[in-house]
Amino acid sequence: MPKSHFPRIPTIAYEGPSSTNALAFKHYNPDEVIDGRTMAGHLRFSIAYWHSFRGVGSDPFGPGTITRPWEKGTHAVSVAKTRMDAAFEFFQKIRAPFWCFHDRDIAPEGRTLAESNKHLDALIAHAKSLQQATGVKLLWGTANLFSNPRYMCGAATNPDAHVFAYAAAQVKKALEATLALGGENYVFWGGREGYETLLNTNLKREQDHLAAFMHMAVDYAKEIGFTGQFLIEPKPKEPTKHQYDFDVAAGIAFLRTYKLDRAFKFNIETNHATLAGHTFQHEIETAAAHGMLGSIDANAGDTLLGWDTDQFNTDVKELTLAMLSILRAGGLGSGGFNFDAKLRRPSIDLEDLFLAHIGGMDAYALAFKLARQILADGKLDGFVRDRYASYDTAYGRDIERRKTDFKQLEKLVLTELGEPKPRSGKQEYLENLINGYLHR
Amino acid sequence: MPKSHFPRIPTIAYEGPSSTNALAFKHYNPDEVIDGRTMAGHLRFSIAYWHSFRGVGSDPFGPGTITRPWEKGTHAVSVAKTRMDAAFEFFQKIRAPFWCFHDRDIAPEGRTLAESNKHLDALIAHAKSLQQATGVKLLWGTANLFSNPRYMCGAATNPDAHVFAYAAAQVKKALEATLALGGENYVFWGGREGYETLLNTNLKREQDHLAAFMHMAVDYAKEIGFTGQFLIEPKPKEPTKHQYDFDVAAGIAFLRTYKLDRAFKFNIETNHATLAGHTFQHEIETAAAHGMLGSIDANAGDTLLGWDTDQFNTDVKELTLAMLSILRAGGLGSGGFNFDAKLRRPSIDLEDLFLAHIGGMDAYALAFKLARQILADGKLDGFVRDRYASYDTAYGRDIERRKTDFKQLEKLVLTELGEPKPRSGKQEYLENLINGYLHR
Amino acid sequence: MPKSHFPRIPTIAYEGPSSTNALAFKHYNPDEVIDGRTMAGHLRFSIAYWHSFRGVGSDPFGPGTITRPWEKGTHAVSVAKTRMDAAFEFFQKIRAPFWCFHDRDIAPEGRTLAESNKHLDALIAHAKSLQQATGVKLLWGTANLFSNPRYMCGAATNPDAHVFAYAAAQVKKALEATLALGGENYVFWGGREGYETLLNTNLKREQDHLAAFMHMAVDYAKEIGFTGQFLIEPKPKEPTKHQYDFDVAAGIAFLRTYKLDRAFKFNIETNHATLAGHTFQHEIETAAAHGMLGSIDANAGDTLLGWDTDQFNTDVKELTLAMLSILRAGGLGSGGFNFDAKLRRPSIDLEDLFLAHIGGMDAYALAFKLARQILADGKLDGFVRDRYASYDTAYGRDIERRKTDFKQLEKLVLTELGEPKPRSGKQEYLENLINGYLHR
Amino acid sequence: MPKSHFPRIPTIAYEGPSSTNALAFKHYNPDEVIDGRTMAGHLRFSIAYWHSFRGVGSDPFGPGTITRPWEKGTHAVSVAKTRMDAAFEFFQKIRAPFWCFHDRDIAPEGRTLAESNKHLDALIAHAKSLQQATGVKLLWGTANLFSNPRYMCGAATNPDAHVFAYAAAQVKKALEATLALGGENYVFWGGREGYETLLNTNLKREQDHLAAFMHMAVDYAKEIGFTGQFLIEPKPKEPTKHQYDFDVAAGIAFLRTYKLDRAFKFNIETNHATLAGHTFQHEIETAAAHGMLGSIDANAGDTLLGWDTDQFNTDVKELTLAMLSILRAGGLGSGGFNFDAKLRRPSIDLEDLFLAHIGGMDAYALAFKLARQILADGKLDGFVRDRYASYDTAYGRDIERRKTDFKQLEKLVLTELGEPKPRSGKQEYLENLINGYLHR
Repeated sequence: MPKSHFPRIPTIAYEGPSSTNALAFKHYNPDEVIDGRTMAGHLRFSIAYWHSFRGVGSDPFGPGTITRPWEKGTHAVSVAKTRMDAAFEFFQKIRAPFWCFHDRDIAPEGRTLAESNKHLDALIAHAKSLQQATGVKLLWGTANLFSNPRYMCGAATNPDAHVFAYAAAQVKKALEATLALGGENYVFWGGREGYETLLNTNLKREQDHLAAFMHMAVDYAKEIGFTGQFLIEPKPKEPTKHQYDFDVAAGIAFLRTYKLDRAFKFNIETNHATLAGHTFQHEIETAAAHGMLGSIDANAGDTLLGWDTDQFNTDVKELTLAMLSILRAGGLGSGGFNFDAKLRRPSIDLEDLFLAHIGGMDAYALAFKLARQILADGKLDGFVRDRYASYDTAYGRDIERRKTDFKQLEKLVLTELGEPKPRSGKQEYLENLINGYLHR
Repeated sequence: MPKSHFPRIPTIAYEGPSSTNALAFKHYNPDEVIDGRTMAGHLRFSIAYWHSFRGVGSDPFGPGTITRPWEKGTHAVSVAKTRMDAAFEFFQKIRAPFWCFHDRDIAPEGRTLAESNKHLDALIAHAKSLQQATGVKLLWGTANLFSNPRYMCGAATNPDAHVFAYAAAQVKKALEATLALGGENYVFWGGREGYETLLNTNLKREQDHLAAFMHMAVDYAKEIGFTGQFLIEPKPKEPTKHQYDFDVAAGIAFLRTYKLDRAFKFNIETNHATLAGHTFQHEIETAAAHGMLGSIDANAGDTLLGWDTDQFNTDVKELTLAMLSILRAGGLGSGGFNFDAKLRRPSIDLEDLFLAHIGGMDAYALAFKLARQILADGKLDGFVRDRYASYDTAYGRDIERRKTDFKQLEKLVLTELGEPKPRSGKQEYLENLINGYLHR
Repeated sequence: MPKSHFPRIPTIAYEGPSSTNALAFKHYNPDEVIDGRTMAGHLRFSIAYWHSFRGVGSDPFGPGTITRPWEKGTHAVSVAKTRMDAAFEFFQKIRAPFWCFHDRDIAPEGRTLAESNKHLDALIAHAKSLQQATGVKLLWGTANLFSNPRYMCGAATNPDAHVFAYAAAQVKKALEATLALGGENYVFWGGREGYETLLNTNLKREQDHLAAFMHMAVDYAKEIGFTGQFLIEPKPKEPTKHQYDFDVAAGIAFLRTYKLDRAFKFNIETNHATLAGHTFQHEIETAAAHGMLGSIDANAGDTLLGWDTDQFNTDVKELTLAMLSILRAGGLGSGGFNFDAKLRRPSIDLEDLFLAHIGGMDAYALAFKLARQILADGKLDGFVRDRYASYDTAYGRDIERRKTDFKQLEKLVLTELGEPKPRSGKQEYLENLINGYLHR
Repeated sequence: MPKSHFPRIPTIAYEGPSSTNALAFKHYNPDEVIDGRTMAGHLRFSIAYWHSFRGVGSDPFGPGTITRPWEKGTHAVSVAKTRMDAAFEFFQKIRAPFWCFHDRDIAPEGRTLAESNKHLDALIAHAKSLQQATGVKLLWGTANLFSNPRYMCGAATNPDAHVFAYAAAQVKKALEATLALGGENYVFWGGREGYETLLNTNLKREQDHLAAFMHMAVDYAKEIGFTGQFLIEPKPKEPTKHQYDFDVAAGIAFLRTYKLDRAFKFNIETNHATLAGHTFQHEIETAAAHGMLGSIDANAGDTLLGWDTDQFNTDVKELTLAMLSILRAGGLGSGGFNFDAKLRRPSIDLEDLFLAHIGGMDAYALAFKLARQILADGKLDGFVRDRYASYDTAYGRDIERRKTDFKQLEKLVLTELGEPKPRSGKQEYLENLINGYLHR
């Protein structure tokens, strides 16, 4: 965690959490050292620029409700700089070591691509100086290829090659920006890379184009010396009827088919997992099983609602299960936990921005501690290991090494093994075991 | 379509559909020749033994409601033979050229594997003679690896290697049975190959085991000379919380990861598609894009319900869209349309079995004709082709061939192309166009 | 259908559908007389001002894509008038006899309530003259109590009585506007009358407030002589986590509890029905069973998506089933079919606005004709009548009239009736029967 | 909690939870006195006979997996008695003061109604003596009107009046049985009181019949002196496509329409709530707002699955929120928490039955304690009270008492109040507040 503090407090009236005020953390202590590493270093929390500094509380049935004191002025680039000052002040006060952005979050789009790039250059320079002043680092950058009407039918999968070219130019610039700011990852979320209706869609051709785009991105990163990790962020739908990166499995199918699997890992978002019909932990396990667990977009959905609610996640049970899988996989490497979460529309106080992040960070911090304890105790993992013990016997090992075949196994059953004896899965026992850690 | 008729009508009181009775087909005429091939040959309808001859109308809240006159006797193997007589009589009367089965559908499970195999041998011999007498052929065979309690925690993915071995022996036998009956495909539906809870599950190890199992199946098929197509049938959940072959994309990810992609195609079930959050057509398109479209389990779900209802599909619009994708992909090859559909619990009359199949077959036959007409007219496909025309220009072709890069494309945009001009996706126009074919 | 035509065509380049152009209706002929009434009179189609003249194609992930030629000028009220000119031109060209609006759709909100009212007055006067010139009538009016941030926590159910008062004032004015324009109904859609979280909510008190509000509306209508029908439009969720008027049943529970059931009927929206887990037909049947079927918001959702997609409905089967229930209930009375449907975001051509409505109107017109034919044939209704014939026997009638009791019925079973004989529900037969009408 | 212990332990090898064995409770101590009442008295836990003593682990894709040592013998009534011995032994060991049953759970159905009644009499007598011996009491009784094929199209809503009569006779007997055993409530779950398809259904007539049936039940209860509470248990679907008692709101609409609202309250099941798209707490709040909160069927669903999973609920957060609403409503009165939950199919050990109930009981007990603490602290309820404080001002009170109207309120806004000032809903603050209680 950076020791240097933000030089001035120009905009945000609230102090950050401390032991002496109402906004205290209960479980997250960034400076606490665990296993030779600070909690900040373990958890690598990141703030999402788009939600926390561009979100205004609008929804499909109403405009924004949230106004921030620093959102004033008429010159767009200058407003963008003041906003960024406030953002870095918040990053520091909330004690998050990282931030994330889309190109269009931080700099206004111009009338032409050249002008947009110029605006972006100005804000990248500003961000660079703020990073240096505060010690806050860039977890990942990305390009917004979904908001502008030109992308209404997709970017890399747009039926118009002109749009593909435009998107290529935009990602090129975003990669350069990410490199300039020392970003440790670069994320692709294909918000419009899908379809509204199959009636007007050549699915195969669109996926071919998407693969071509990804290969060009990988090549260009190499060319400019960007060595950060590429990440795909799956989402099944919304805004499109169907998004090609539906879930981690669809991403793996795509990456392996187009020989991109060595270049990419996954940025898994909790709310996207549940929209696809999976638990958060399932998506983590699936990515981890393929060595492709990259980073986490830390939020929560509401499984009784059918859209992306992007809530701050305070479900310690869900997070503890997720943390178990992440820790077993060896952690997130260059990834982190990015709070891709937004305030509820009526949460209009500036204080709410602090409270929401404190709640999310504390829940993750507690989950991290509980998962470590569960792993240290060994009961849960021991149970699972024992459950598969038969694969450590002679014929079990042969199965795993594919040194046996149907004929041998049939013979074994007919002559030796006979009928298997069912063993309880002990789900209720394990649920109680977990609850024992969660609620003392 | 077989010309020889079933020699005797021992059990089923109803005649099949004909122009002179109430059970007439309106759109399906198996003998009608279209493009040098009969409709029976185009559509390759198949009857699912399990639903139509083993289903009794039970559900989780009540036992069976359906009793068939041929279900009598005390000797299980002999009852099974009489039942099979009735089944083949039905196949003929309903004019379906194919049937499908699980091993345990046709023959009773014995007290030991050896006894089960013996029973199966008796029924395979019986089926063989019925196939010869009627001309009805086997579309595919499979093994039931999900009903018996021994498989409650999976078959190939069971934590107990003993169960893996037992399943191997069972599939070995089912492959032999399928070969003996001239089956054109062999299907894997992994009904319990998933998990109830991640708490007791090693997901990676289970998927490794599943892959080992599949490789052994492929090897054994080669050994015995079975040249039929292997098919995976995806389903996201039910009975398990999560099934590994969640959808076609998950299947592709699995097959490519474990280098099984050349040996397998997909058997796509309508109801499983919608349970996974996809349209039927989406799953077909996804499989076709990868050259892995194998066969269809023809039914329908209820998208307002969350379980597999396995209804007969009479939605001509949905089927026409599916048929468009199938015909564009060149058809199903060795696959067919298997009515994996069951009567509603209160549909207890024998007549209902005829009516249900007539409804489903007519809907598919009409969809087939409509899709052919839409393709022949060329308006729909012409629209889609034009929509992607920019990829047939110079830089569009370069993108598709990956002969350009981000730098060139950026330059093109900055110096020549400028801002793309959005073009309408025309979804409503296309929906009206399709409705024009469906409703004259 | 109004015979007088719009005097000038200032804004819309397209002609309406006619037999000589590409935009022809196939099934809807407003002037065709059926049973002594024109189709326009039977179907009472209405255009939704908000979607068709205020919608711009925005979604939560991107701003508007649609620009209309008439949307220019700097003076908000004057722009609003020009927009309304275009709207009435469209109503005429598309041959819809009705329109619907929210107060804030037609007139810009001012800085104060007084100013908002002044703006509204100007547009009401303008609408009045356009209605007279074109013969287009107002199906219903309503107030937008959900967009403005003041309503972020509800209007009549807001925890702040001040907001309740403000909403009261706004509905007072909207009732006056509806009366002034001869509106035949007044609709309440409680878009924010629900909660985001129960943690901060007093559910009982909020429902009491909602009832008080409804009573005041009924009283005020009486006071000013508004004799149109009040309608509640149920929706389960979105934008809120939970809306009090979840579905028709929840509406009935509310109305009966607070003794408002004589004053209200329901405006049923297809997409809201499916979001609540019901079919469109179910909601119609439920309202009709209580004599509370009022009007229809004609659109469609996508049951694989979890939000309100508000698509134009072209599913002739769904609409035919809905029409059956509506016709059996004696029609909609003062209600109509209001196209509460919006163009897909990429459907940016002005032509698309025509195509979309033509598709929707044709689908409804065809459904209307098919439903009439099904009823005239009598097979379907005869089947259902026969199914309940036992209630026309002696003890059946006694049950319906509650002239028997458990003791008598037990005796009847024990001494006379014995075990009931199950009869097939014939669902597949009925599905085939319906398909026979849909697809000749 | 009964002090007398079961005289003999004939069947269950496990001891109940105690401080000296592995099956100890962590939070539930039946004898602990809180506010002058034991925890057993506060929580009134009940065991569901059907799941725990008739469930065998079957699902739609496989037969039972669970075998119990006491399930042996050939004489059905005698087997039923032995089973009941085991059940009461379990009730005692698990320290649950109540049990619940369906008529057909405890006694085998005979070939005729008379025979069924005779079997039931035998088991009621047996239950009576077991209740006396153990002190375990009957929370509620009910009749199974959904399993037998005669009820495949409904019981009280069956199109055949004969089935209505049969159901009447069965409920008559079940009411007598419940009275004989001192049951404190009688439950109606209308598992088949709905429809599979509207095509064959007269929805209005079926609901009229259902109301007639309920009135007869109320009358007969009066006649025989049964003074227990009648309860409706809503469920939206499964096994039927649509159940009339969809949710609490649908139940209220039905009860108020047919003037049954004074005679009934609700038995709310967690899993049914979520299947209907509601939270558990929502259904409790809705019933409580109408004074109709009766009892709880304590289980959990899986919101990512679309069927009734009936899992034991160990989600302490969900239960704490539910308990808050229950305690605020003054508790459950004659109701209780009935574990309508079943073991997962692979949980085949007898020990699992104990573990599952211990987990569920502990979760509820902890939730009870936490909810009491939250209420005692007063922060949460104080926040909510303050949020509605404006309704305690002059014009706020007038609104609540309906002593004002639209005109007065408009005047107030125009002349005094002006534009309301939005206030934050503080959702994130409240979520953090709750988490502070859940995780110390």
